[in-house]
Amino acid sequence: MSAIKPISLKQAKLDDSFWTPYQKLVKQVVLPYQEKVLNDEIPGAEKSHALANFRIAAGLEEGEFYGMVFQDSDVAKWLEAASYSLAVYPDPELEHRMDEVIAIVEKAQQSDGYLDTYFTIKEPEHRYMDLLEGHELYCMGHMMEAAAAHYEATGKESLLNVARRMAEQIGSVFGPGKRYGIPGHEEIEVGLMRLYQATGEQKYMEFASYFIEARGKKPEFFAEEKEKRDFDVFDMDPRNLDYNQSFAPVREQTSAKGHAVRAVYLYRAMADLAAASGDGTLYQACRTLWKDILAKKLYVTGAIGASGELESFSVDYDLPPDRAYAETCAQVGLVFWAKSMLDNEPRGEYADIMELCLYNSTISGMQADGTHFFYVNPLEVNPGISGEVFGMRHVLPERPGWYQCACCPPNLARLLLSLGKYCWSESGDTVYTHLMIGQTAQLAHAEIRVESAYPWEGRVKYTVTPKTEEEFCLAIHLPGYVGKDSFVLTVNGKPQEAELRDGYLYLKRRWNAEDVVALEFPMEVRRLYGTVRVRDTAGQVALARGPVVYCFEGADNGPMLQALTLPRDSEITAVKGEGELLKDCVVLKMDGLRESDSDALYRTTPPVREKVTLTAIPYYLWGNRGLNQMRVWIRE
Amino acid sequence: MSAIKPISLKQAKLDDSFWTPYQKLVKQVVLPYQEKVLNDEIPGAEKSHALANFRIAAGLEEGEFYGMVFQDSDVAKWLEAASYSLAVYPDPELEHRMDEVIAIVEKAQQSDGYLDTYFTIKEPEHRYMDLLEGHELYCMGHMMEAAAAHYEATGKESLLNVARRMAEQIGSVFGPGKRYGIPGHEEIEVGLMRLYQATGEQKYMEFASYFIEARGKKPEFFAEEKEKRDFDVFDMDPRNLDYNQSFAPVREQTSAKGHAVRAVYLYRAMADLAAASGDGTLYQACRTLWKDILAKKLYVTGAIGASGELESFSVDYDLPPDRAYAETCAQVGLVFWAKSMLDNEPRGEYADIMELCLYNSTISGMQADGTHFFYVNPLEVNPGISGEVFGMRHVLPERPGWYQCACCPPNLARLLLSLGKYCWSESGDTVYTHLMIGQTAQLAHAEIRVESAYPWEGRVKYTVTPKTEEEFCLAIHLPGYVGKDSFVLTVNGKPQEAELRDGYLYLKRRWNAEDVVALEFPMEVRRLYGTVRVRDTAGQVALARGPVVYCFEGADNGPMLQALTLPRDSEITAVKGEGELLKDCVVLKMDGLRESDSDALYRTTPPVREKVTLTAIPYYLWGNRGLNQMRVWIRE
Repeated sequence: MSAIKPISLKQAKLDDSFWTPYQKLVKQVVLPYQEKVLNDEIPGAEKSHALANFRIAAGLEEGEFYGMVFQDSDVAKWLEAASYSLAVYPDPELEHRMDEVIAIVEKAQQSDGYLDTYFTIKEPEHRYMDLLEGHELYCMGHMMEAAAAHYEATGKESLLNVARRMAEQIGSVFGPGKRYGIPGHEEIEVGLMRLYQATGEQKYMEFASYFIEARGKKPEFFAEEKEKRDFDVFDMDPRNLDYNQSFAPVREQTSAKGHAVRAVYLYRAMADLAAASGDGTLYQACRTLWKDILAKKLYVTGAIGASGELESFSVDYDLPPDRAYAETCAQVGLVFWAKSMLDNEPRGEYADIMELCLYNSTISGMQADGTHFFYVNPLEVNPGISGEVFGMRHVLPERPGWYQCACCPPNLARLLLSLGKYCWSESGDTVYTHLMIGQTAQLAHAEIRVESAYPWEGRVKYTVTPKTEEEFCLAIHLPGYVGKDSFVLTVNGKPQEAELRDGYLYLKRRWNAEDVVALEFPMEVRRLYGTVRVRDTAGQVALARGPVVYCFEGADNGPMLQALTLPRDSEITAVKGEGELLKDCVVLKMDGLRESDSDALYRTTPPVREKVTLTAIPYYLWGNRGLNQMRVWIRE
Repeated sequence: MSAIKPISLKQAKLDDSFWTPYQKLVKQVVLPYQEKVLNDEIPGAEKSHALANFRIAAGLEEGEFYGMVFQDSDVAKWLEAASYSLAVYPDPELEHRMDEVIAIVEKAQQSDGYLDTYFTIKEPEHRYMDLLEGHELYCMGHMMEAAAAHYEATGKESLLNVARRMAEQIGSVFGPGKRYGIPGHEEIEVGLMRLYQATGEQKYMEFASYFIEARGKKPEFFAEEKEKRDFDVFDMDPRNLDYNQSFAPVREQTSAKGHAVRAVYLYRAMADLAAASGDGTLYQACRTLWKDILAKKLYVTGAIGASGELESFSVDYDLPPDRAYAETCAQVGLVFWAKSMLDNEPRGEYADIMELCLYNSTISGMQADGTHFFYVNPLEVNPGISGEVFGMRHVLPERPGWYQCACCPPNLARLLLSLGKYCWSESGDTVYTHLMIGQTAQLAHAEIRVESAYPWEGRVKYTVTPKTEEEFCLAIHLPGYVGKDSFVLTVNGKPQEAELRDGYLYLKRRWNAEDVVALEFPMEVRRLYGTVRVRDTAGQVALARGPVVYCFEGADNGPMLQALTLPRDSEITAVKGEGELLKDCVVLKMDGLRESDSDALYRTTPPVREKVTLTAIPYYLWGNRGLNQMRVWIRE
C-alpha cells in the first residue's frame, strides 16, 4: 500500500449544519476573546501578560515577566488557531494583526534562536537546566505548530523562519553526541513533526525522532537534572516517571500512564513519526497503547484521564463518572492522535474515536455561548458535591468563564477550526473519508462535495468530480456502530456493492463528473453497557444514537437523578428537541421509574417506584440550562 | 424524673461470649504492645519516644523532644486504658508499672501545674500561644480522663493530684475575667467533666462549662491568635471554623460539621455537662446535633465522618461507601457521646447507636489478632483502587501494623475495657440496662447477673438480687429493630406485661432474690435500604441481623463483587459460620446473581446473569482473610 498522507487544511471548506456554527462561534467569539486576553484588554479577566512578555523579551518595552512558566504557549496556540481560521475564512485584518504579533515574536527570539520569554527575562542563567518543569521545549513546540499552520495558511515564512531558527538552536544543544535531554511535557516532538510536514525537511523528523526515542532510556534523567540545579520552577517529584511517560523507552511502553495530555501528545508524535518514516514497529508501539486505552481507560463519551490527581490516567477499569478528570485537552489530543493513527493504517476504530470525542467530550468543554469552558468533563455531576467535596473539587457543575481556564479553549479552537484536516487522508490510489461532515474538498484525485445529515441522521452524499481518468478508490468510514448488513450504499441512485474492510467501505471505479455516492443507515438508539470490571457503572446503562452520547439532566428529569431507573424493556423514542438550546438536535424520550423519596436515612421497607417519562439530551449540551444534576449512566 | 447517673466501672464484671474475648485480647495483646511502643521497645515499630519525652521534661534524662505535638496523649490514653484493665482484671504488676509511669508524669509536671512535654522541652516561651494547633489542652484533657480512671480503679490519688494541679494551672490562665481561649481540638472539656464525675467537685464542671460555652462566641479567635504569634506548629488555616466547631456558639449549632472526632468529643462533653447540671437547653442543643447526624450523616455501620479531607463530616447525604473516612476514633467517640445522652434521657435510639457502633464500626478497626488496626472503616474496598487512587488513598484494603496508627488502637482499648460502664445507668427508682452483655453488675438497687446470647440470638436473662425492699424499675433496652409485638418478656418464666416507652421496657415491681427476667425476640435478617438522597447506595441493599451489619467479601464470593445482585425475593438463611475466623458467628447464605464478565469495555448486548450462592459475613470481621474486595451494599 502506498503511503497515506494527511491533507492540507486549505483543501477542505466546511459547510455543515453541525460544525459550521461551531467554527463561526470560534472565529467570531473565541478567537477575538483570546486575542484580547493576550493583550490584557478584558476587564475583570485574569491578567495574561503573554504578549507583554514577548514585547519585554524583544526589548520593545520595559517590565517584568508575568504568568506561568509556559505562558508563551498561549500566544502560540492563538497563532495556530488564528492561522487555521485564515485558511478557511480569509480575513486580511486578522492576518495583519497576526503579522504584527509575529514581528514581536521574531524580535523576542534571541540571536542564537532560543525563544522563551520566561527564561529570557527572568532566569537567563537557567536555560535548559530544568527540562522537567521549565516548559521551554513545550512552548517552542507549540510555536512550531503555529509556524507550520501559519505557513500552510498564508504561504508566509515569517513564523516558519522563527521556528527553523528555534529548531537549529535546540539541535545545537540536544541530540546524539550532544546533551541528552527530554522535556517534562511532550510537545516539541509534535512541533518538529509539523515542521517536517510543512517543509518536507528530513532533519526535523530526525530531531523529533531523537526526542521520542530518548524518552525513558535514562529513567533517572530528571532526578539527575534536579541534583545539578539549585532552583525549582514547581518542585515536582522528578522520580514520578509515569507522570511524563519516562518510565520506559516508548517502544516498550504497554500501558498508558501519567498525565493524559502529555501522553497523547507523545503518542501523536510517535504516530506521526511512524507514518512519515514508515516505521512499522513504532506504529505497533502506538497501537499497543491505543488498545490499552480502548480496552481499559476510555469513558463512554470518549474522554480519557480519569484521575483528578495530576490529571492522569487512573488504573485499569477505574472510570468513575462523578470523579472523572477527562480534560478537554486530553480529548482534543486523542483526536489528533487518532488522525495520526489513520495516516498509518486506515482502521475504522480510529475514525470512531475521532467521532466519539468530537461529538461528545471535546465540545462538552464549551458552553453554547462560546465564552465558558470546562477543563473537566465529568459523566455525572451533583451540585453541592461536585466542585465541593474531597476528591471531587475538580469536577465543576458549571463552566467557568474563560479566563480561569487558559489551556482548553485555545486547544478546542485549533481543533474546531482545523476540522477539515481530520476528514480526509489520501494515498496513491485511495481517498479516505473519515468523518461525515458537509464540505467541499479539493483532493489530489477529485473534488468531492459532501452533504451530510450527520450526526442526527445516517445519511451522507458524496458528489465526486474526478481530476484523473485513472481508477481510484473512495474509502468511506462506516461508523463502528452500524451493522454490517444495515446500510445502503448507492452510486448515482443504484445500489452498489463495496468491500467492507476494517471499518471502511472501499469503492473502486473510474469516476465520472458529478458521480453521486450515497450512504444511508438507520440511526437507532443504542443501550451501552460497560464491562462489569468497571465498578462504578455496573448495573447501569448509557444511551447513544449515532455518534452522540446522551445524558439525563435535572432540567428535564427533576431532582435526584439517582432515583431514576430505565427498565430494560422501555422503548426509547428519538424526537426533535424543543427550546433554544435543543431545537436543532434529537432528544430521547422514554418511560422510566422514579424511586420515592424518604426522610429516614435507613429503612427496612423496599423502595417504591412510580412511572415517569425520562428525557435524555445530547451529552455535549449539558450544563447549558443553569445549575443542575447530570448523569450519563442510569440504573437499568 | 430523678437524675440519671452513670455507674463506676468496678460495678460491672463482664462475662460475655462476644465481648470477654475482646477484653482479653486488649489486656493480653494490645495494652502490653502499646506499653512497649511507648518505651520504644518494639523493633521495627515507628519511634514513639512518648515516655522519654516525659523523662526529659522531668529532668530524669537528657535529650530532645521527639514526636507529634500531641505525643503526650499516647501516654495518657494508655494510662486510662490500663486503669480500666485494673478495674476489671486486677493485676498488681501492671499497677506497679503504672505507678512508675505516673511518678515520671508527676515529675514532668511543672511547678505551676502545667504539663506538656512538647512545650516544656522545646518551646517553653510558646505556652498557650497556639491553642489552634498546640494540643496542650487536648493532652491535659486526656491526662484528666486517665486520672479519673486511675482513681476509680485503684483509689490512688497520685495521678488525680496531677490532674487537679493541671486544672488549677489552666484555670489560672483561662476563664471569666482572665484570658479568652478555646482549644483547637476539644478534649479538655471531657477531661474536666471526668474530673468532676470522679471527685464531685463543682469547680471542674464550671470550668468545663467555660470551655464549652466559649466555643464559637468569638469566631475570629484563632485568626487573632495567629496574628499575635510568629510561629506555627502545623500552619493550619485559622479561618476554617467548621473544622473545630467554632463557627457558632455550641447552643446555636444545628449541623454536625468539621473534624468528626473533635465534634463528638465536644458533643460528649456538652451532654455530660447537661446531665450533670440538669441544663435541658444544652441537652436540646446536643439533641439537635444528634438528630442531624442520624438523619443525614451516619453510615449504616454506625460510622461517621465521611470525608477523607481533614477527617470530617461531609455535606448532608454524602455517604460514599468506597471513599468513607469513618475513623475508628470517631465511632468510639460516638459511643461515648451516646452514653452521655442516655444519662440525660433514656431513649432507645442512643442505645441503638451504641450497639450499632460497638458490633460494627468500632471493632472493625481491629484485626482479629489484635495487632493490626484501621483508622478508616470503609463500606467498600477494592484492592488496587482503595489505598491507591486519588480520593481513596486513605482507604486501606488491609489493616496496617499498629505503629503506623497511633490514635485508634488506644481509643479502642479504652472503650473495650470500660464496656461495663456503657451497659447501665441508674436513677432514683430505675435501673437502665442499655446493652445485652453478659456480666454481673453490682448496682445501687440490686446485683444483676446478665446472661446473653447476643448478638447472635435475641435471648437475654437478668437474674436480679435486690438490695432494697422498695419497688424499683428495671428498664430494659429493646433494640430498635425489634417489632413492638414480636418479643416475649417473662418474669420467672411467666409472661409479663411491661410498658414500652422510647425503646425501653419498664418493669416495675418489688423484687425477690433470684427473680429471673427473660427477654426473647426473633433475630431475622433485615434488608436495609438507604434513602435515595444518598446517591452512592441508591438501588442497593445492605443486610443486618440483630445489631450486626453484614458484608460480602471476595474470599466467599469470588472476584468482582460489583457483578453481584441480590434479588428482592431471595431468601436469606442464617447459618453457623465455618473456619477459624467465622466459627463463633452467624453468616448469611442466599441465592444471588452474577453478571458475566466481558472483555469489551462497552457493548450493546445486555448483561447476562447466572445464579450463584452468596455469602455475607459480619462486617466487623472483614479483611481478616487476606487482600480481597469487600462491600456492605449490594445491588438489589
